[in-house]
Amino acid sequence: MKMAAKIYIALLHYPMRDRRNNVVCTSVTNLDIHDIARSCRTYGVAKYFVVTPILAQRWLAERILTHWEEGWGATYNPNRKEALESVAIVPDLGEVAEQIKQDSGREPLWIATSARRYPNTLRYGELTRILNEDSPPVCLIFGTGWGIHPELLLDMDHILEPIVGPTEYNHLSVRCAAAVLVDRFFQDSS
Amino acid sequence: MKMAAKIYIALLHYPMRDRRNNVVCTSVTNLDIHDIARSCRTYGVAKYFVVTPILAQRWLAERILTHWEEGWGATYNPNRKEALESVAIVPDLGEVAEQIKQDSGREPLWIATSARRYPNTLRYGELTRILNEDSPPVCLIFGTGWGIHPELLLDMDHILEPIVGPTEYNHLSVRCAAAVLVDRFFQDSS
Repeated sequence: MKMAAKIYIALLHYPMRDRRNNVVCTSVTNLDIHDIARSCRTYGVAKYFVVTPILAQRWLAERILTHWEEGWGATYNPNRKEALESVAIVPDLGEVAEQIKQDSGREPLWIATSARRYPNTLRYGELTRILNEDSPPVCLIFGTGWGIHPELLLDMDHILEPIVGPTEYNHLSVRCAAAVLVDRFFQDSS
Repeated sequence: MKMAAKIYIALLHYPMRDRRNNVVCTSVTNLDIHDIARSCRTYGVAKYFVVTPILAQRWLAERILTHWEEGWGATYNPNRKEALESVAIVPDLGEVAEQIKQDSGREPLWIATSARRYPNTLRYGELTRILNEDSPPVCLIFGTGWGIHPELLLDMDHILEPIVGPTEYNHLSVRCAAAVLVDRFFQDSS
């Protein structure tokens, strides 16, 4: 329980890479909100931030939340309401930092996830060791599109090693990658 | 590698329960096809069946596959093409059985997944023991809507214990549940 309660998840939509390595802002996806919120709620993750600098996209995401939290969806499916209560729609990582500091009293460690391996990649076991110590909370950053732009990756405290299976193929959806990761944390803390 | 190669996944759309316990046929969802195919490909699952008795829904699902395998999507995102190659769109579990027998030479064990716990629930460790032996292949059945109808559950060889985290909440999306499960198999066979 302890480990997940120190984990925050942020899903970024900017600055992302597109397939030609341009910097882009991706669109918020309805199922990214729902699926990752449900996984966070199942495993007791502290809070899930959906991060986009585009006002109209935040408005859309807020409308989706309102539908399930207060609108017709709240009575249609109370489980969904419960999952979405831990979601915050925010413009940037500065706001994520503020909310984590308010919530936990500490500045988090910023840990990016990536499907690529980098020289300074943090091994998964090192992260669980950090989490088991009296460490600050951890904000796991997930990208969208073709992944987090390298410029932002350089600002992170660590880049977590990619999730790999027994094949060469490692293109899990971000929804599934987040679920697998929090499940692994849970398995390793119980 | 071995364990996943003996696993087949079937996503059922009928007979499902709705929230009032009626028997319904649910709609095929685009992201269920993509996300589960990507997880299957990452972890080396033998084949992924999308099962619906409704002809128009199979036609729609086939159109989605054709877009990514032969249409514009095939050059836009070859990784997606690779993942979707292991997807088969079929009308019922009889056809699933036929294809698994053709592929592996044996009738599979039918193992339903459920978010509920039943008296005859198969423990996860028992399933990995079965898979490590010289057992027949295993077809893991995932439901949609409010879950697989009890009438069909009774026909299965086993019902696998639900995925639980440290909280009381266990409403993972089927996409995430499938990913977590195949990741656990992978962790336990490596």
